[in-house]
Amino acid sequence: MRYLFGPGPSNVPPRILAAGSKPIIGHMHPEMYEIMNDIKRGIQYAFQTENNMTIAMSGSGHAAMECAVFNTVEPGESVLVAINGIWGERVAEIAERMGANVHRMVKTPGGYFTNNEITQAIEKHKPVLFFLTHGESSAGLCHPIDGIGDICRKHNCLFLVDTVASLGAAPIFMDKQNIDILYTGSQKALNAPPGTAPISFNDRACHKMFNRKTKPVSYLFDMTHLSNYWGCDGQPARIYHHTGPVSGFFGLREGLAILVEKGLEESWKKHKEVASYLYRGLEDLGLKLFVPERDLRLPSVTTIAIPNGYDWRELLMYIMKHHQMEMTGGLGPSIGKVMRIGLMGYNCEKTNADMALHALADALKNCKKSKA
Amino acid sequence: MRYLFGPGPSNVPPRILAAGSKPIIGHMHPEMYEIMNDIKRGIQYAFQTENNMTIAMSGSGHAAMECAVFNTVEPGESVLVAINGIWGERVAEIAERMGANVHRMVKTPGGYFTNNEITQAIEKHKPVLFFLTHGESSAGLCHPIDGIGDICRKHNCLFLVDTVASLGAAPIFMDKQNIDILYTGSQKALNAPPGTAPISFNDRACHKMFNRKTKPVSYLFDMTHLSNYWGCDGQPARIYHHTGPVSGFFGLREGLAILVEKGLEESWKKHKEVASYLYRGLEDLGLKLFVPERDLRLPSVTTIAIPNGYDWRELLMYIMKHHQMEMTGGLGPSIGKVMRIGLMGYNCEKTNADMALHALADALKNCKKSKA
Repeated sequence: MRYLFGPGPSNVPPRILAAGSKPIIGHMHPEMYEIMNDIKRGIQYAFQTENNMTIAMSGSGHAAMECAVFNTVEPGESVLVAINGIWGERVAEIAERMGANVHRMVKTPGGYFTNNEITQAIEKHKPVLFFLTHGESSAGLCHPIDGIGDICRKHNCLFLVDTVASLGAAPIFMDKQNIDILYTGSQKALNAPPGTAPISFNDRACHKMFNRKTKPVSYLFDMTHLSNYWGCDGQPARIYHHTGPVSGFFGLREGLAILVEKGLEESWKKHKEVASYLYRGLEDLGLKLFVPERDLRLPSVTTIAIPNGYDWRELLMYIMKHHQMEMTGGLGPSIGKVMRIGLMGYNCEKTNADMALHALADALKNCKKSKA
Repeated sequence: MRYLFGPGPSNVPPRILAAGSKPIIGHMHPEMYEIMNDIKRGIQYAFQTENNMTIAMSGSGHAAMECAVFNTVEPGESVLVAINGIWGERVAEIAERMGANVHRMVKTPGGYFTNNEITQAIEKHKPVLFFLTHGESSAGLCHPIDGIGDICRKHNCLFLVDTVASLGAAPIFMDKQNIDILYTGSQKALNAPPGTAPISFNDRACHKMFNRKTKPVSYLFDMTHLSNYWGCDGQPARIYHHTGPVSGFFGLREGLAILVEKGLEESWKKHKEVASYLYRGLEDLGLKLFVPERDLRLPSVTTIAIPNGYDWRELLMYIMKHHQMEMTGGLGPSIGKVMRIGLMGYNCEKTNADMALHALADALKNCKKSKA
């Protein structure tokens, strides 16, 4: 047993492991389409959307990222990317590779953008797409979303939001918040194995992506084909496109079913409670949280400023070796700045927070502290 | 229970299902790297190669297709694609989307290309990449490979071969046959769930793809990053790229382990024997095999010419309904021309051939035959 208390993948509960080990059926059997329909309905609930164009990618969160950008942007078009951690960096790189004209708004990890700053940048760069990370797991920040969809709408720009690390842990309302494209991953608060990634497009996004002059650069991620595979295009027949990860879809369906049974509000409340409990325990250990504004902290992934005098790699290795527990360091621009504890979905329990705190206390006691 | 006797996915044996349902670990834990190393060694054996640059894609066969083309071709370069079924069509489409100058050699499904024809086309179009399908599952053809690698080498062209449907069922020798890039899927003779795809590049392919002027259009499929994730780039540390499908890798490792235990030659022999047995049974039913040349038939997927007067959809639906057995129709250009029976890996047994023949005989007896 290993405790996956990093930023994901998270431990997979027995019920989801069992679903993923069911004998497989064909990727185009009628029963598989029923399972895909269940997944679609589960994503609609989790995203709080009624979008018909709601599917799961046959791949990790990066597949959803590339799908979103490849389909809604044509070469030469302007894209604006908010970067305050690793995920914005990735989207900017993806958009540049497919030939977009990329503009970056940059804050150091943990920073956030005001609606005023976003408005100004959109007015300056006139993007067709604006990207923002809701749950910036590398910094432990949960970015405010309210009002941004309206700003984008007013400026004829699509609003793309990454909720890989936050879905199920912090409130998001795709329709109410006027988010045009939303995606997440299977392996965080949904507790399924990595390898599938829910994504949804509203009518504005569909209008843009289905009225383009050029074909998207990837055949595999082309929404014309994926929408048919998922029965979202109104066509009577589904035509073979690629072979979806059948077992991965079984697991994702179960993860979504658990979220539906528990209820989103209950899940959000639980993540907030356990995170608050963890904050208190960390402060009792004399540790400092990396994001000072309590309301901006991501409930699923907590970032701790590296305590003075300690080697963060040594602390993490100690915890893995003596407690069979994964915590992680930073990622991308937050490397060397933070240590991260993720308690997501199935793992989000006070007893797990206690175990994590105990392991951390033990590491702080036993790892050598330099005199610097 | 459903008998997956189509062209894949194939039934997954209990041992592989059990491997895929093991509790997951982190995608960058040292134990995961060991599992990935095992997979690498397994692929090297299955491909008969010593290539260091051997990995598994986090996706289906199409991910491997796009990876191969995106990394080894730059926009504007010439690519030659042999099309005698669906897979060549797909590769041509993929190469066109990323801006290659695509030339097609086309035969009707079931046709094949002589080395002379290939030489002439390569001399005419001077491609940087030549694509050929080894196991054309849509037509049931196993294409001869000998000598083509030498032709490509002589003309400074990379030789890319698709073995999704043939690996483990028909002999392929990546190194001896001078194949520069080879890929397959997890869900055929390897009997793992769909969602991972082995791929290997030799030194010639690496030289081309790591000395390009432009970045590949996909960040997710960029071999610079994937080679680091798989520990193939000689760097001391692995840097986070994307989250691999941990459970999918567990299953793929087990599928490769079974192939190693059984032995390639034994697996090739078994597929040939069972296919021969099936051919005889089909002929006894008065059916005609679609590929007349016995030596060109793909042992894993057998194509049957649609018997006169029958509706192939009705036959297949009857077999699914009354025998819980999947057989399929054609795919792409072979739709309406063939019915297909796949007996791959774990499913490749004479008892299964008997069951398939019994179901087919029953369908021929009970489905109405038009008088035309």
